[in-house]
Formats: sequence, structure tokens, C-alpha cells
Amino acid sequence: MSQIKTLAIVGVGLIGGSLSLALKSKRAVGRVIGVGRTRANLDEALKLGIIDETASLQEAATADVIFVATPVAQMPPVFAALRPHVGPNTIITDGGSTKQDVVAAARASLGEKFSQFVPAHPIAGTEKTGAAAAFATLYEKRKVVVCREAETSAVAVDIVESMWRATGAEIHSMTAANHDDVFAAVSHLPHLLAFALVDMLAALPPADDYFKFAASGFRDFTRIAGGSPEMWRDITLANRDAIREQLAIYRARLDKFDLWLADPSVQNTANVEASYARASAARNAWQRHIEYGEPMPKLASGGQVE
Amino acid sequence: MSQIKTLAIVGVGLIGGSLSLALKSKRAVGRVIGVGRTRANLDEALKLGIIDETASLQEAATADVIFVATPVAQMPPVFAALRPHVGPNTIITDGGSTKQDVVAAARASLGEKFSQFVPAHPIAGTEKTGAAAAFATLYEKRKVVVCREAETSAVAVDIVESMWRATGAEIHSMTAANHDDVFAAVSHLPHLLAFALVDMLAALPPADDYFKFAASGFRDFTRIAGGSPEMWRDITLANRDAIREQLAIYRARLDKFDLWLADPSVQNTANVEASYARASAARNAWQRHIEYGEPMPKLASGGQVE
Repeated sequence: MSQIKTLAIVGVGLIGGSLSLALKSKRAVGRVIGVGRTRANLDEALKLGIIDETASLQEAATADVIFVATPVAQMPPVFAALRPHVGPNTIITDGGSTKQDVVAAARASLGEKFSQFVPAHPIAGTEKTGAAAAFATLYEKRKVVVCREAETSAVAVDIVESMWRATGAEIHSMTAANHDDVFAAVSHLPHLLAFALVDMLAALPPADDYFKFAASGFRDFTRIAGGSPEMWRDITLANRDAIREQLAIYRARLDKFDLWLADPSVQNTANVEASYARASAARNAWQRHIEYGEPMPKLASGGQVE
Repeated sequence: MSQIKTLAIVGVGLIGGSLSLALKSKRAVGRVIGVGRTRANLDEALKLGIIDETASLQEAATADVIFVATPVAQMPPVFAALRPHVGPNTIITDGGSTKQDVVAAARASLGEKFSQFVPAHPIAGTEKTGAAAAFATLYEKRKVVVCREAETSAVAVDIVESMWRATGAEIHSMTAANHDDVFAAVSHLPHLLAFALVDMLAALPPADDYFKFAASGFRDFTRIAGGSPEMWRDITLANRDAIREQLAIYRARLDKFDLWLADPSVQNTANVEASYARASAARNAWQRHIEYGEPMPKLASGGQVE
């Protein structure tokens, strides 16, 4: 494992800070410089040993690897500011939760240096934010998705993948479009659905009773609705095409449920139960998979709404 | 606290069995007799000391208190079978997750003995079922909702509320209609939404990738989709009016989200963020309430979809 001499982190929060701590703990990085918007957070990062110095974006451009860990909506101006200063051997990579929009922004803003950019997404996080939330083991046994484009330098991909492997993560490759579809399904759409439900219930007249009698099922179902509104607005907007595609299918399914409940015939009652049974079987198989390592059954069996 | 001489439990599963164990541990019951459909489960209940004897429904009708803890769809025939044998001082109560349908069934099937029936719903449970899942502390500090009707005997309500208080539960009173609206909101609709999402994702072509990359947010959001399809079919159908009313509002909100994402203008982007922000504020206030006992802010502020 080769060491990265200088790593620049743009956005020294949970994601960026944890990468630094992980690499430092494995001696996989020499010097880490940090770029950020708020002095207090950078001071905290210095104090915690997450970064060795603060830097401007222009100074960050001289690093060997630049990790852009800002919210995705802030990446286009970061790329544009880096472009004139980035040398031919500098590698740029990111940690954004959406990939097609980041790739498009990088292609537009990095111009001829786009081949030096490796789009990536570490699948890890907690509810906490800021440098103080960072910890060295965040990425251990977690997945990092790398979405190389046709132009992406193979050398750059190797270095970024090695960097992530050093943190204990495992690498998965996927196109940006596949990535965005997958994470719309398992993260972005569920967030939208949970936010929408909690906002609706909080606005209805019996809201106080709703929250008074809500129990553990509600607690778990809505945990993701406690996330950052700004961050999830950005992700929702950035991945709106994939989300809308799945939301359309979901809304059609809810329409079916409404029809079934409006006319609870034997057939419609069976339709409700069949949908619940397919969901329960898949969910419980997945639970056994993540908990006990049991193999997942082949899905996409086409279980269709009637 | 007066002791119940003989308690009959119809349906000796997690809910019924835990009531018996809780009352026995507090010496709040003399003898417990159990009625059930499967011999193996009754034998388990005998072995675990949950029940002292098995009984027929006719024998159960001679108890001082009869607790009907079957799935709600099985309650109407249970009430009908009990009716001719129930004495004038016997109290019947239930543990069903829906109340208007149970009240209607009891009114129809118990006839002149309907005043002896106390509709109730202990808000407790785990993912497990059967007598072997029962434990004495299930109801400690949990809520029990009692939904008395105009005809309900005040003496019967007192005895049922005392019984539940003996388990460590706290009593809340509500009309059956309010109960069903509240639990549609915080339990039944979330279950339907979670089942619908998992069934949809499991049927789409990239299902294997979806479940491969699903992480902790998805795990918590879909935990309730691992529940029993039969039980949740019954609850969904039993409470379909309240569920459909809320589902209509929810579907309208999803329609709005789709419009906002189709046209991500400054205003629509702000609409997404405002909805997420209201949800996040309510969810996090509720989390602090259940975790640290902080007071809940007044909700139902009318935060409306534009």
C-alpha cells in the first residue's frame, strides 16, 4: 500500500474528517490539509488532529489527492475554483450521495482535467455532522461505490480505490446511472416518504395525539425523517429523475391499495395479503442476510400488483 | 388492588400470555385458564406456567374476566360463542389493534351482554408471536387505551383498568373512532407504506442490487415490513376507512412532491426543504421527548403543502 503524500479535504465534516482519521491511523497518508467555510469547524479539526493545516482551495489544488466532501450542491463551484490550479498528476475524488449530477458538474467545471476526477460514494454516515463527529473506523467493512466514466484515468481509479481500501472499506463499481437508481430506491425515496409522512401527521389536527401514542414501529420508520433538511433537499433535487421514476411506480401501488381497501372483496383482500407476504418474505430474508450472512434469494421475481 | 379470581385468556400468544404472566407476578390473579386453536401452543403455555388449565370457550365464559386476545378477524365468532354462556357479572375485554370493528362485532354478537364488554388496546408487542414469546414485563410503562361506549358498565371499566394498572401499564381513554384514527396514523398506514415499498423494490429488475446496497436507513424504515402478512392484512382491512382517509392526504402530498421535482424552481426547491424541515423538527422534538422527557411542542400548526 503506497502512501498519499498530501491529501486535501474540502469540507472537513463527518465524511471528510473520518477519511483523514482512518488513513492517519493506518499511516496511509503523510500530510492532510483542510478547506472549509467555517473557522470554528476547521479549528476543531486541527485540535482533533484531523487536519495538519488549513488551506485555501488554491493551496488544496497542489495536493496529491483532493477529496471533495461538501454537500453535492456546493461541488460545482469547488470544481471550478480548483480547475486552474490542479496539476496534471493531482487526483480529485468526491464523497457525494448522488453521482450523475456530480459527474456532469465535474465534466463541465474541470474541463480537460475531468479525466483526473474519480466519482465515488462511501456508503457510511451517522446522524451527526461536523469535524467533531468524525472517527477513524467509520468506513470499516462499509461499501464504497466508484463510478468511473469513459474518460476516467485508470491510474487515478487505482489510487482512489487503494485509498478507500486502506480505511477498511470494500470497493464496488457501478455506472453513475445505476448508482443513482439504487440509492434512490434504498435511501432517497425512503427519506422522501418518511419526511412526507411526518410533515403530514404534524400538520393534522390530532397531531398531538399522534405523537403521544406513537411507539417503536413509528420510531424506526421515521428515524430518517430526523435528517438534515438542507442536505436531503440537495440530494432529492440532485437525483430527482431517478426518484420520480420510482415515486411514480410507488404512487401507482398506493392507488391500487386504495382501490383494494375501497372494495374489500375476497380477491382484493388476497391482493393486500399477497403484497404484504412478498414484502415480508423479502425483508426477512434480507434481515437474515445482514444479520447471519444467509444468502439472499434471487429477487425481482416480478411479483406484480394486479 | 383486588384480585381477579379466574381469568380466561382466549388466544394465548404474546399479548394474552404476557397479561397472565404480569398479573401472576403481581399476585393480581388467582387462576388463569386458556383457550386456543393449537394444542402445541397451549401445552407450551401450560409448561411455562402462563395458564393453569386449558378450557373450551364455554368453560371460559364462567371466568370473572375474559380477555380475548385473538387476531381481530377472529373476534366475532368468539363473541358469538361466548354469549349464551356468559353470566351477568362476567367481564369481557379484548386486546385488538383496531376498535371500531371490534366494538361493532361485540355489539352485534354479545347482544344484551354488550355492556359487560370493555374495548381496550394495549400498545405493546414485539416481532415474536406465540405463548413462548410472552413475558411478565411487556406492559410496564406502556399505554393501554380503553374505548368505553355509552352502554359500557362503569364497574366493568374499573375492573379492566385496575387489571391493566396491575401490569404496570398506564390507562388512556379515547373514543373508538379516535383510537382508530390515531393508530392508522402512527402504525397501520406506516406498515402499509413500508410493505408497499419493499414489495415494489423486490419486484423491480435491479432488486438484487437494491438489497445489496441497502444500509441502516433502509433497515429501520422497513423493519415493520417484516411483520405478519395475515395479521397486518386483518388490521388494514379492519381499519380501512381511517387508513384510506389518511392515505388520500398522503397520496396528495406525494403528488405535490412529484410536481415540485418535475419543476425544481426556486419556489419548489423551497417547498421541498420546508416540508423536510417541518418533518425533521417534529421528529427530532419527539425523539427528545421519548428519550429525555423534554416537552413536546404544540403541533398541528397547519404547516401545509403549497
